[in-house]
Amino acid sequence: MPDLAILAKHLAYQFTDISKLEQALTHRSVGSKNNERLEYLGDAILGYLVATELYHRFPQASEGQLSRMRSNLVKGKTLAIIAKSLSIGDFLILGPGELKSGGFRRDSILAGAMEAVIGAVYLDKGMESCRLLVQKLFAERLAQLTPDSIEKDPKTRLQELMQSLKQPLPDYTLTSTDGAAHDQVFIVNCIITSLKEPTIGSGGSRRDAEQKAAQIALEILEDVADKHHSATSHE
Amino acid sequence: MPDLAILAKHLAYQFTDISKLEQALTHRSVGSKNNERLEYLGDAILGYLVATELYHRFPQASEGQLSRMRSNLVKGKTLAIIAKSLSIGDFLILGPGELKSGGFRRDSILAGAMEAVIGAVYLDKGMESCRLLVQKLFAERLAQLTPDSIEKDPKTRLQELMQSLKQPLPDYTLTSTDGAAHDQVFIVNCIITSLKEPTIGSGGSRRDAEQKAAQIALEILEDVADKHHSATSHE
Repeated sequence: MPDLAILAKHLAYQFTDISKLEQALTHRSVGSKNNERLEYLGDAILGYLVATELYHRFPQASEGQLSRMRSNLVKGKTLAIIAKSLSIGDFLILGPGELKSGGFRRDSILAGAMEAVIGAVYLDKGMESCRLLVQKLFAERLAQLTPDSIEKDPKTRLQELMQSLKQPLPDYTLTSTDGAAHDQVFIVNCIITSLKEPTIGSGGSRRDAEQKAAQIALEILEDVADKHHSATSHE
Repeated sequence: MPDLAILAKHLAYQFTDISKLEQALTHRSVGSKNNERLEYLGDAILGYLVATELYHRFPQASEGQLSRMRSNLVKGKTLAIIAKSLSIGDFLILGPGELKSGGFRRDSILAGAMEAVIGAVYLDKGMESCRLLVQKLFAERLAQLTPDSIEKDPKTRLQELMQSLKQPLPDYTLTSTDGAAHDQVFIVNCIITSLKEPTIGSGGSRRDAEQKAAQIALEILEDVADKHHSATSHE
């Protein structure tokens, strides 16, 4: 097994109990003593730390801008990039199946381990040490962030994506409304030619429902694009 | 305007700066100085507090059980119920449009205000006061919680819902797979007779994709059911 002290050095963090780091790196494919509970914990702590950091850093930003910056920072893709910069893949403890199929390169496994490491640091020395670690891990990204630099809303992003792919623009249709006048629910279909079926969104306004349907379409298209990318770059 | 000291009493919390509570109760329909940033902050803090509380309370629970308990506790419906138990609706500050249309009864507005109040307490006296408040607000629910008492996975819940409605069971079909062998993406349709279009889920396994499609279907069906309920109970 690789020397965990090296990874602790990459993290610039001294563990009181290094077995916590070991557990954070242990994928569920190994067995029942794995990093899933730490990942759950790290996810919540990271969400809180990033949310408060952004809140104080951007006193003029709207809730929508703060939420978009936050999801951009804590999404799996970002966490996987940070995990790679720390070479976490080299320290993962994987079961035989995942080892053979290259699990150490998988974004979801790397992102999960990154969250678990954050959870492990929290248990090891508490919130303040954890805050310092997170600030260090995200320092560059936080410094470059401005409320406007971040992604637009899902409908705009989906439209821009379709334009860049030279595909027809998404088509939204209201399929039903329900409920009392002051408290309606809207259900909207978003039709995209490259998906066999429309995505569906529901919400308290037509616009909300459209945004949700667009968000679901974006996630599917991004999932597919990621796999294409990893298929060509790794195989 | 109703006396905020009464609400502070319901919360059993003494504000250093009562204007923070006032802001937490101010809906965006009033204008630009509203509770949206506090709601964003409260959401992240609540997520963290509930996640750590569950982590320590249930040392044997799996990540899946912890996540399900957490989303059950922090979902809008639960927060709206707690907000109602504190009579937060009586203290909301709403714009004329929302006032007329009965916004003080709306679950989404009540849940948002509940999160904003948690954010306000955090800013007013810090994390430890906030933790005590959250523990108090959720005490009954936490005491009744067991890892098994909580909802099953989305596919199971959707199946049970369809059975209880005497509707045909959901039908899942794989519409595409993509990516390299070790890192595929699966796209699945979930067909439900009462929805005009199938919902779509994507994921790293067929099962994950089915769970996501089921989750989306559940959210839409629950949205619709809620509105039916509020339409009959309030109008």
